[in-house]
Amino acid sequence: MHTIIFESDTPAGRAFDVGLLWAIVLSVLAVMLESVESIRVQHGQAIRVLEWCFTVLFTLEYVLRLLSVNRPLLYASSFFGLVDLLAILPSVLSLVLPGMQSLLVVRVLRLLRVFRVLKLASFLGEADVLLTALRASRQKIIVFLGAVLSTVVIMGSVMYMVEGSANGFDSIPRGMYWAVVTMTTVGYGDLSPKTVPGQFIASVLMIMGYGILAVPTGIVSVELAQATRQHAIDPRACPGCGLEGHDLDARHCKRCGNVL
Amino acid sequence: MHTIIFESDTPAGRAFDVGLLWAIVLSVLAVMLESVESIRVQHGQAIRVLEWCFTVLFTLEYVLRLLSVNRPLLYASSFFGLVDLLAILPSVLSLVLPGMQSLLVVRVLRLLRVFRVLKLASFLGEADVLLTALRASRQKIIVFLGAVLSTVVIMGSVMYMVEGSANGFDSIPRGMYWAVVTMTTVGYGDLSPKTVPGQFIASVLMIMGYGILAVPTGIVSVELAQATRQHAIDPRACPGCGLEGHDLDARHCKRCGNVL
Amino acid sequence: MHTIIFESDTPAGRAFDVGLLWAIVLSVLAVMLESVESIRVQHGQAIRVLEWCFTVLFTLEYVLRLLSVNRPLLYASSFFGLVDLLAILPSVLSLVLPGMQSLLVVRVLRLLRVFRVLKLASFLGEADVLLTALRASRQKIIVFLGAVLSTVVIMGSVMYMVEGSANGFDSIPRGMYWAVVTMTTVGYGDLSPKTVPGQFIASVLMIMGYGILAVPTGIVSVELAQATRQHAIDPRACPGCGLEGHDLDARHCKRCGNVL
Amino acid sequence: MHTIIFESDTPAGRAFDVGLLWAIVLSVLAVMLESVESIRVQHGQAIRVLEWCFTVLFTLEYVLRLLSVNRPLLYASSFFGLVDLLAILPSVLSLVLPGMQSLLVVRVLRLLRVFRVLKLASFLGEADVLLTALRASRQKIIVFLGAVLSTVVIMGSVMYMVEGSANGFDSIPRGMYWAVVTMTTVGYGDLSPKTVPGQFIASVLMIMGYGILAVPTGIVSVELAQATRQHAIDPRACPGCGLEGHDLDARHCKRCGNVL
Repeated sequence: MHTIIFESDTPAGRAFDVGLLWAIVLSVLAVMLESVESIRVQHGQAIRVLEWCFTVLFTLEYVLRLLSVNRPLLYASSFFGLVDLLAILPSVLSLVLPGMQSLLVVRVLRLLRVFRVLKLASFLGEADVLLTALRASRQKIIVFLGAVLSTVVIMGSVMYMVEGSANGFDSIPRGMYWAVVTMTTVGYGDLSPKTVPGQFIASVLMIMGYGILAVPTGIVSVELAQATRQHAIDPRACPGCGLEGHDLDARHCKRCGNVL
Repeated sequence: MHTIIFESDTPAGRAFDVGLLWAIVLSVLAVMLESVESIRVQHGQAIRVLEWCFTVLFTLEYVLRLLSVNRPLLYASSFFGLVDLLAILPSVLSLVLPGMQSLLVVRVLRLLRVFRVLKLASFLGEADVLLTALRASRQKIIVFLGAVLSTVVIMGSVMYMVEGSANGFDSIPRGMYWAVVTMTTVGYGDLSPKTVPGQFIASVLMIMGYGILAVPTGIVSVELAQATRQHAIDPRACPGCGLEGHDLDARHCKRCGNVL
Repeated sequence: MHTIIFESDTPAGRAFDVGLLWAIVLSVLAVMLESVESIRVQHGQAIRVLEWCFTVLFTLEYVLRLLSVNRPLLYASSFFGLVDLLAILPSVLSLVLPGMQSLLVVRVLRLLRVFRVLKLASFLGEADVLLTALRASRQKIIVFLGAVLSTVVIMGSVMYMVEGSANGFDSIPRGMYWAVVTMTTVGYGDLSPKTVPGQFIASVLMIMGYGILAVPTGIVSVELAQATRQHAIDPRACPGCGLEGHDLDARHCKRCGNVL
Repeated sequence: MHTIIFESDTPAGRAFDVGLLWAIVLSVLAVMLESVESIRVQHGQAIRVLEWCFTVLFTLEYVLRLLSVNRPLLYASSFFGLVDLLAILPSVLSLVLPGMQSLLVVRVLRLLRVFRVLKLASFLGEADVLLTALRASRQKIIVFLGAVLSTVVIMGSVMYMVEGSANGFDSIPRGMYWAVVTMTTVGYGDLSPKTVPGQFIASVLMIMGYGILAVPTGIVSVELAQATRQHAIDPRACPGCGLEGHDLDARHCKRCGNVL
C-alpha cells in the first residue's frame, strides 16, 4: 500500500497519482465556483454534495497515508502532512461549528497538494535550476529588499507630509502602500499625487524606482546563467579520484591531476 | 502557376507576394475602420464595396491555391489553409445567414496571412534565434507558469476572504483576476484593496510578484545568449593543436598559428 | 570664428558651448513655465521679454553659423541645421501670423540642440556602447514588434467582439489601444474588461504579454554584453598584417598566423 | 566606551547594537502609528510618552558618541552624525516651537540609522557586489537618463498640444508628469489620453518606452555578471603552461595537470 500511495513507479501508483490530481483540481474548481453568487444560488446543492464526496475521499486518503507510513506522527507534522489535514479540516469544522462558514475558503489550499503529486513530473530538473538560481541570490535579494523597504518608508512619509489627508494620504502606512504600488509600477490610481511638488517627487521615485527594480531581474539573470552552466557541465568523472563537474575543455582532473 | 503563388524567387512570384501583402493589410484596415461608428455611418457603402472586392480576390486566390497544389485536401487542412479559408468565410456566411453579422470581426484574422508572405523576408534568421530561445526555455516557462497560477489562486482566495463583496471582490475568480492584474504590474485600478490588511497583503504580493516576474526575463536572456552563441560559433577545430571555438573570419589558429 | 562656434577644444569654444547650453535649458524652462496658467497670468510679460531675448540670441547664432561654414546650404539642410531653424521659427512666425500661437510649443524642440553641445561630453563612448547594442539588435526588435503588433490587432478585435460598446470598447482601434496599454503593463484603467469572459481573456493576455515583453530586455542584455566585450578587447595589433581586435588569450594572429 | 558604541566585535558592543536596532525600529513604528488618525485619538498619550523615552535615549546615545570619539566635530558633521542629530532634533524643536508639529514626520529618517548598525551584517559583501555593479554602470545610466528626460519633455509638450486643458493636460509640466507615469509603465490613470490622435501617440510612446526601459535592466545584468565574475575568479596562473582562470578549489592545472 505504501508504494501505491507514496511512490509513482508502479502502474498502480501512477494511476493513484493521476486520480488524486484530478480530484484535487476538481475540488478546487468546486470551491471557486461556489464563491460565485449566481452559481451558488442555482447549483449550490450539487456543489455541496460534490464537496462532501471530496472531503470523504481526502479523509480516506489521509487515514490510509497515516496507516501506511512507519512513523505517522512525523508524517502528520510534516509540511505536506499539514496541507493534507488542512484539505479536510474546514469542511469537518463547518459541520461542527456553524459559525466557521467563512473558513471554507481555506479549502483552496488543497491546491498545494498538487505539488506533492507533481513530484513525478519529468521537468523537476528545470524547477531545480530555477530554485538553485533563486537560492544562490538569496542574500542579494535580502539586501535589495532592505533598500526597497527603506525607500518605501521614507517616500511614504514624505508624501504624507507633502500631499496630506486632503489628497488621500491620510497616514504614513497609507503613504507606504502608495510607494509600493508606485515603485513596483503597478499603479492602481486609487491614490495618486495631486499637488505639483507631490507629482514631481512621484516622478523622481518612478524613474529611480525603475532603476532599482532592474536589480532583481539582473540578479536572477546572472544566477540563472550560472545555474544553467553548472547543469550543462561535463559528465566525465576523474578515473583517479572520481571527482565530477569538470569544465568541458579540461584534460586533467583539477583535484589530482590525472588525465581524464 | 505553383511557383508564382507559393514561391517567391521569380519576379512574378515576388510581385504576387507584394500585391497580396498590400491586399491583406488594406483589407484588415478596412475591417478596423468599419468598426468605428462615425466612419461606418459616413463611408459604410464604400467600405462594404471594398470588402467584397477583397473577398472575391481572396476567394480567387484560395481556389488557385487549391488547384495548383498536388494534394488540395492536405493544404486545406493545414494551418495556413484554414487561415486562408477563415479570411473569406465570414463575408460569405454573412450573406447567407443575416444573423452572423457579429462574425465579421473574424476577418481580422486575415492578418495572420501576412506571416505566410513574410516567409520571404531576410530576417527570418533572427526570428529563428528568438524562437529557438523560447522553445529551449519551454519547460522552465511551464514550471514558472505553474508557480504563478498557484500564487494567483491562493492570493485571489485570500483577498476574497479579506476584502469581501463590499469592496468588489465578490468571488474567487474575481479575486484571481485582481491577482493577475496586480502580479503582472498592469494595475487597472478597477479593483483595488480598500481595507488595511488587504492593502498590506497586496503590498507583499506586489514586491514578491516583482521578484517572481524577474524570472521569465532571466530565462529568456540566458536562452537568448545561448542561441546567439550557437548561431555565431565556428565548428572548425585546429589541425595542429585541436583548439575549437575560432572566430568565423579566422584563417589561422590563434594558439599555434596553424592554417585552419 | 568657426573654431569657436563649432569646436570645443579652445577655451573660447568651450565657454561658447557652456553659455549656449545654459541659454537652451533656460529657454526651454521658459516655454514650460509659460504653459502653466497661473504663471502665465502673473509673470507673462517677463517671460515674453525673456523669450524675445532668447529668440534674438538664437537668430544671431544661426546667422553666425551660416556665415562661418563653407557650404551654408548643406548646413541649413542638415538635421541640426533644421533643429536650429526650428528653435527660432515659431517665435518669428507668431509675430507675422497671429493665428499661429499654438505653434509656440514647438519651441520645446530647442531641447534637441543640447545634444549638439553635449558632443564634447566625455561619456560619448558610453552612449556609443548603448547605440551599438541597440543597432545590433535592430532586426530582432523589428521581428519582435511585428509579433507585438499582430497580437495587439487580434486581441483588440477579440475584446471589441467580447466586451462591446457598452463597456467602452466601441471600435477595433479602441480595442487595440486597450491591448497596448495592457501588454506594456501600463494599465491606466480608463478601459478595462467588465464581463467575465473579457476578464479571462485579459488575464491570459497579461501573463502571455509579460512573457513576450521579456524578449526586448533579453535582446538588449545580450547585445549589451557583446558590445561591452568588444570594447574590452585586446589593444594589440598584429606585427605582420596589422589586424586588431584579437582575443585576450590569442598568441598568433588569426588572419596571417604571425606571433603577436 | 568607544569599543562598545562604535565596534561590534565584543559581546557588549554586539548587545549595544542589537538594543539600538530594536529602539530604532520601535521608534519608527511609533512615528508611523501616530500618523494614523484612529490610533492617535485612542493611544496618543501612550505613543507620546514612548516617543519621549526614545528621544531621551537617542540624545543620551548622541552625547555618548560625541564624548567617546577623539574629534567630535568631525563626527558631528559626518553623514551618520547628521542623521543621529536629525533623529532627536524634531522632537526637541517641537517642544520649543509649537508651530513645528509638522516637522515630526522627519523623525522617520531615524530609519537610516539602521544602516549604521547593520554594518555588522555578514552579507555586506553582497551589497558590495550590487554597489560595484551600479557604480560601474553610472555613466551608462546618466546617458540613459538624459535620453529618458528628453523624451519626457518632448512627449509632454506634444500631448499638451494634442490633448489640451480640456482633457487634463493643462500645462507642459503636467504633460511631462503624464509621460513619466506612462514610460515607467506605472499608469495611474489620473491623466490619460482621450482623443484618437492622443491615444495613438500614447501607444507609440508605450511600446517605444518599453524598449527604452529594457536598457537599465540590460545594463545592470551585464555589470552584475562582471562584478560577480570578478569576485569569483582565481588570480593563480599554472606554473607549467601559464593557463589562468582556474576554479577556486582547483589544485592541478586542468590543461597540463601541473600542481598550481
